[in-house]
Amino acid sequence: MSLVEDLLAGDKRAAAKLISLIEDGDEEATEVIRAIYKETGKAQTVAVSGPPGSGKSTLIHRLAQAFRRRGKTVGIIAVDPTSPLTGGALLGDRVRMGDLTADEGVFIRSMGTRGRLGGVSAATSDAINVLDAFGSDVIFVETAGVGQTDVEVAALTHTMVVLLMPGAGDDVQAFKAGIFEVADLFVVNKADRGGAEAVAADLEVMVGMGEETGWVPPVLLASGLRDDGIAEVADQVEAHFAHLAESGGLEAKRRTRVEREILGALAESIQARGLALRSGTAFSDWVDRVLQKDASPREAAQGLLETLGPEG
Amino acid sequence: MSLVEDLLAGDKRAAAKLISLIEDGDEEATEVIRAIYKETGKAQTVAVSGPPGSGKSTLIHRLAQAFRRRGKTVGIIAVDPTSPLTGGALLGDRVRMGDLTADEGVFIRSMGTRGRLGGVSAATSDAINVLDAFGSDVIFVETAGVGQTDVEVAALTHTMVVLLMPGAGDDVQAFKAGIFEVADLFVVNKADRGGAEAVAADLEVMVGMGEETGWVPPVLLASGLRDDGIAEVADQVEAHFAHLAESGGLEAKRRTRVEREILGALAESIQARGLALRSGTAFSDWVDRVLQKDASPREAAQGLLETLGPEG
Repeated sequence: MSLVEDLLAGDKRAAAKLISLIEDGDEEATEVIRAIYKETGKAQTVAVSGPPGSGKSTLIHRLAQAFRRRGKTVGIIAVDPTSPLTGGALLGDRVRMGDLTADEGVFIRSMGTRGRLGGVSAATSDAINVLDAFGSDVIFVETAGVGQTDVEVAALTHTMVVLLMPGAGDDVQAFKAGIFEVADLFVVNKADRGGAEAVAADLEVMVGMGEETGWVPPVLLASGLRDDGIAEVADQVEAHFAHLAESGGLEAKRRTRVEREILGALAESIQARGLALRSGTAFSDWVDRVLQKDASPREAAQGLLETLGPEG
Repeated sequence: MSLVEDLLAGDKRAAAKLISLIEDGDEEATEVIRAIYKETGKAQTVAVSGPPGSGKSTLIHRLAQAFRRRGKTVGIIAVDPTSPLTGGALLGDRVRMGDLTADEGVFIRSMGTRGRLGGVSAATSDAINVLDAFGSDVIFVETAGVGQTDVEVAALTHTMVVLLMPGAGDDVQAFKAGIFEVADLFVVNKADRGGAEAVAADLEVMVGMGEETGWVPPVLLASGLRDDGIAEVADQVEAHFAHLAESGGLEAKRRTRVEREILGALAESIQARGLALRSGTAFSDWVDRVLQKDASPREAAQGLLETLGPEG
């Protein structure tokens, strides 16, 4: 399987092709991920979330440059749950990141989930595994900052960086639900604008309340645009990973991620079988039996489930 | 199984208890519905949908009285996808329907779906079967008029009555998507208010466009409050049922409903098994194997699926 060999040899085109196959829910991607799975688990994974306009792409760009200067290779996945709609904007971001794409040590890719039964979470998890096996030392996952997806991605990554910006005070409250609980690091971006300190002060009060993991999320000021405060963010990303390694959090995170991956694969298999069942002749046979009152709908469902072989 | 005997003997308490069991997703309800399934398929089923405030409960009340005068027994199910929130209002509606509850030939019940994996559609289908076996000649299902639920309930019933009211012009457009396509009969309720004729005229234009089933949905004016125009609505409900019987639509509707019931039961069984799998020791064993890189998450999912017996 040359796609596997190419990927493990660090071929960017192989990585790009695999992510396309993942988006499409292609069976070949499944086979490749099965083959490369042993080579995963080496990368540090960092989710970056924040409301629209908070400057996620630019900050990731700067962080990628910082980690490159520290001798790390970098992978970037921009997860976009509504790919057909905002694909253009994301492409624009990619274009602005031009100088990174020329760097052999950086792989950048935006990703939709058009063909995937398992949705964003399953596709993102697969893509992280691909970049991990490909050889990226640090993998950034940019999410749209709109809720459930972010929380799911946080569960797949080591470190969750949450971006906020000044002048969006009401957003802080709206954004708070769900994502705050999974944040490991806050960055008030666009700190060149007025009001950044006030947002940071509000955040400091919030994060001070109850943390049981021994890690109080730091609140940092930065400006992606002016390349200001980026080294400090990179330092804290590294510090959080070190904290996880020392506290046993790394093991716990790995177990959580594996549980989610298995449940995701389980849900996808079951859904695929359900779709297959529906289009089979056994289904219409059972419909006929129920119409003749030979069976109840539930008995038909039981009968159909019995036809499910383990290799469905 | 005395609950089955009591229900088939027309015991209202048995019907009420069964619907409670259906709401809870209780296994006993499943067994009873299996046992009574042969006794279903006799009732005429009528969904009544419309935006909040369009007077659904009152109109159903009047229609029930009209069908009682025509010698039919009546069952009424108010489906409420957010039961804990609006339960009070529904109870209020029930109280206003006081004189109906005293009638032995009428069974009224509002229903939530608290414990059901299959959601509103599965619970409603079961409840219709219960009232059908119980002996209701005409079964009304009142839905909240908020979208997907209404379309699902339309697929479970013979006739879909859609209510509108004057003075809600913008709502007509908003309401249009989805529900208009499945309407068999429009009622402009609260026709004692001004503007009803204009709403009816708008509707006439819409329904005139493309109908391939040989049934053009009539548009009627009525006032539930003043008990005005109700006999005409009841006439058209009966006319639609007669049309279905003559055109072969009754058979097609029955097949569609059975297909949905089987798929619903299938989805519920599969979900229940997934939940059971997750809490079993096999799951944590597979997590350990994946953590040790003995298997990929997808191989773990396949392994878990193989442990699924047909009797779930």
